[in-house]
Amino acid sequence: MTESALEYMTRLGRAAREASRHIARASTGQKNRALLAIAAALDAARPALAAANAQDMAAGRANGLEPALLDRLELTPARINGMLEGLRQVAALPDPVGAVRDLSYRPSGIQVGKMRVPLGVVGIIYESRPNVTIDAASLCLKSGNATILRGGSEAIHSNRAIARCIEQGLAAVELPAAVVQVVDTTDRAAVGALISMPEYVDIIVPRGGRGLIERISREARVPVIKHLDGICHVYVSAYADLPKAQRIAFQAKTYRYGICGAMETLLVSEVVADAFLPAMAAQFREKGVELRGCERTCDIVDVQAATEQDWATEYLAPILAIKVVDDLDAAIEHINHYGSHHTDAIVTDHQGEGRRFLAEVDSASVMLNAPTCFADGFEYGLGAEIGISTDKLHARGPVGLEGLTCEKYIVIGDGQLRGESNH
Amino acid sequence: MTESALEYMTRLGRAAREASRHIARASTGQKNRALLAIAAALDAARPALAAANAQDMAAGRANGLEPALLDRLELTPARINGMLEGLRQVAALPDPVGAVRDLSYRPSGIQVGKMRVPLGVVGIIYESRPNVTIDAASLCLKSGNATILRGGSEAIHSNRAIARCIEQGLAAVELPAAVVQVVDTTDRAAVGALISMPEYVDIIVPRGGRGLIERISREARVPVIKHLDGICHVYVSAYADLPKAQRIAFQAKTYRYGICGAMETLLVSEVVADAFLPAMAAQFREKGVELRGCERTCDIVDVQAATEQDWATEYLAPILAIKVVDDLDAAIEHINHYGSHHTDAIVTDHQGEGRRFLAEVDSASVMLNAPTCFADGFEYGLGAEIGISTDKLHARGPVGLEGLTCEKYIVIGDGQLRGESNH
Repeated sequence: MTESALEYMTRLGRAAREASRHIARASTGQKNRALLAIAAALDAARPALAAANAQDMAAGRANGLEPALLDRLELTPARINGMLEGLRQVAALPDPVGAVRDLSYRPSGIQVGKMRVPLGVVGIIYESRPNVTIDAASLCLKSGNATILRGGSEAIHSNRAIARCIEQGLAAVELPAAVVQVVDTTDRAAVGALISMPEYVDIIVPRGGRGLIERISREARVPVIKHLDGICHVYVSAYADLPKAQRIAFQAKTYRYGICGAMETLLVSEVVADAFLPAMAAQFREKGVELRGCERTCDIVDVQAATEQDWATEYLAPILAIKVVDDLDAAIEHINHYGSHHTDAIVTDHQGEGRRFLAEVDSASVMLNAPTCFADGFEYGLGAEIGISTDKLHARGPVGLEGLTCEKYIVIGDGQLRGESNH
Repeated sequence: MTESALEYMTRLGRAAREASRHIARASTGQKNRALLAIAAALDAARPALAAANAQDMAAGRANGLEPALLDRLELTPARINGMLEGLRQVAALPDPVGAVRDLSYRPSGIQVGKMRVPLGVVGIIYESRPNVTIDAASLCLKSGNATILRGGSEAIHSNRAIARCIEQGLAAVELPAAVVQVVDTTDRAAVGALISMPEYVDIIVPRGGRGLIERISREARVPVIKHLDGICHVYVSAYADLPKAQRIAFQAKTYRYGICGAMETLLVSEVVADAFLPAMAAQFREKGVELRGCERTCDIVDVQAATEQDWATEYLAPILAIKVVDDLDAAIEHINHYGSHHTDAIVTDHQGEGRRFLAEVDSASVMLNAPTCFADGFEYGLGAEIGISTDKLHARGPVGLEGLTCEKYIVIGDGQLRGESNH
C-alpha cells in the first residue's frame, strides 16, 4: 500500500462524515436491528475470532507482552459472551436521538425548544482490549454517530475479525459500512491524523492509561472527553453516624483499589476524630491498607506521617491518606484545592451540611452518605459508559449515550415574522 | 508598575478563582441585590462616566478612530439607561444555579440526579463598547460565575469608571470585589495571558469581529464559546405556501443585513421556482438587494450568475445568492455542505418534510416556517445572550445564563453500599 497514514485516515474521515448523515437519521428500530445483527455475526464467527485472537496472543507472547496485557488481549468464550450481552443491552436502552424538550410558545407566536441529535463522528482510541471495539461501537451506533475505532496494535488481528462481523451486521440492515470503521493499520501516525481532523471528527474519546490520555489531550485539535485523575475524598462530619461512616469509607477505599472512584483521602471532623479513627484504622490495617496521616491523625492513631504530596496523589493502591479537619468549610476547601473534581462524598446526618456539600464541592459527582465507588455509568442508570469526564464543558461524570449527543434549537412557526405580534 | 502583564493577569486569575467559590454559593437574592446596587451606582455616577467617556472619545478622535467605532465607544445617556435596564432585566431572570433534575432511585437504593452549577471563572474579551462591560458582567454574576473582563483599549477610561460602579455594587451586598474584575491595562499581552490560564479560567467568550474571534480560538488553551460564520439558508419547498414563503424569505434577508442570523442563500424547489422567483426577485430588487443566481435561477429571473464562492459566503450585506434545487434531499445536502451550522429554515406545509428538515439539518438552530433572523437570545426566551455558539459541544445556538453553567451528578444515599441490595 503506497497510501500514507494521513491519506488513509483522511479517507476514513471523509467516509465517516458521509456515513454520519445516514446513521443520524436511522430509526431506532434499524439501529437496534444492526446491534442484534452484529451480535449474531459475532456468535457465528467464534472460530474465526478464536483463530485471529490466537495470532495476536502468539505474537504478544513472542514480543514479551506483560501477563496483565496478555490477559486483556485474550478473547475467551466468556468475553465473547460478554460482547453479545453488551450489544443486546445497548439495543434495549432508550434512544436519546430526536428527543425534544421545553418546546414552548414565545410572545412572537413561534415555538422554541431543543432537540437532541448525534454529535456526528466519534473517534475512539484505546489499548489492546478487543472487547472495547464492540463496547464503543455499540454506544456510538445507538446514539446515531459514525465511529472510527483505533485499538492497540497488539490486537490488530482480533480487531480485524471483529470488524468483519460489524460490517456483516451493518450490511444486514442496509446501513453503510462506514458507520463503524476499524482502523486497519498499526502505523502510529494514524492516531496523530485521527486527532487532527476537526472537519471529519467531532470528538475523541481516549480509553486507557494516563499516559495515552495525556498525550491525546495535549495533541488533539478535536475536543476530547477525558478524565486524568481520580483523587476522591470521603468527609466524615461531626454529625456522621460513625458506624455508617466506617462502612462507607471502608468500601470507598476497598471496593476495588484500581478504579478511578476509589477514595484516596479520608477527611475527618476533629469533633469525631477520637471516636472514629481507632476502629476505622484497625479495619483498614486488617485489610492491609497502608495509612498515612496528618499530624492530628498521628496523635490519635499510630500511622506514618503524610506529606504535602500525599494530599495530591491518586494511589490506585491499598494506601490511604487521612486528615483531621476543623469543620465542613475546611473539608470543602481541602477537596476543591487538592481534589481532581472527580467524585467526593460526605457522611453526615445533618441536612444543612449535606445541602452545602452537594452544592459547593466542585466535582463531577458529589455524594451524600454513599461511597465514592458508586461513580459508574451502570450504577447511575446510564446502561453503559463510554468513559468518565472530569471536564466541566459538555459531559461531566460518567458518559453514556446522552454524552454522545448534543442539543440544537428548533423553532416552529407558521409564518410569524420578527417584531410583529401574531395573535 | 514593574509587574508584567503575565504577573498581573495571574494575580487577577487567582483572585477570580478564589472569588468564584463565593459567588457560586451566593443566594439568588444576594446576586439580584448586587445587580440592582450596580445599577444604582451607575445611575449616581453619570457625571463621572460622562467625563471618563469624554476622555476616551477625545483620544479616539485624536487617533483617527473610524466614525462607526467612535459611535460604539460613546456612552450616551440613552446607553447608560440601557445598561441600567439590562441589569434590572437580568435580576428578574430565573436563577439557573442549583436546579436539580432527574433525581431518581436506582436499584441499589441510592438516588442519582443532576445539579446545575456555575462554570467557575469566565473570561470575556471584547472591543471598545463600554456597555458590553455591564452586559457581560451581569450575566456572569447572575449565573454564579466570577468574571474577568478585557475590553478594547480605546475604552479604558470608560471601563475604569464602570468598574468602580461595579465594585461599589458588590461591596454594598458584601460580595468580594474579585467577583467582577475589569482588566486595567491596555497591554495586549494581557489577552494572551487570559486565554492561557486553564487553572484560573474555565471558559473564554470573545465578543467582536471575526478577526478577534479567530485569533482567540486559535491561541486559547481554555475552551472558547464562539461562532465564526452565519451562512444561513431558507429553503422554499414544493409544498410551501408561496406568499408566506415570500414574507419569510424577505424578512430573513432584510430584517438587518449585518446580523449573523441573516439569510445569505435562498434555496427554491424546482417545482415552485417558476411561480415563486419572479415576484420574490422583484421585491428584493425594489429593496436594493443584489441577487446572484444559479443557472436555473438565471433561466427564470434576470440576475447575475453566482459562482461556487457565493454558496460559501457570509455577505452581511444586501446581497443574496439564490439556487434552485431538485428536492428536500438536495436542499439538506446543500445546507449541510455549504452552511456554517448556524441557523437554517424551511418553508413548507408538508408535515413530513418539516419533520425531516428539523431532524436532519445539522445546525445550531433549525426553523420551520419562520425567518432565520429569529435566531436571538431574547426571541428564544433566554432573556439575554452572552453570545451565539456554532460549536456542538457544551452550548449550541444563543447562549444565555444556562450556557454559563454546567451540570454535575449528585448521589444521595443513606449508607447504601455498592453491590448490596438495601431494601
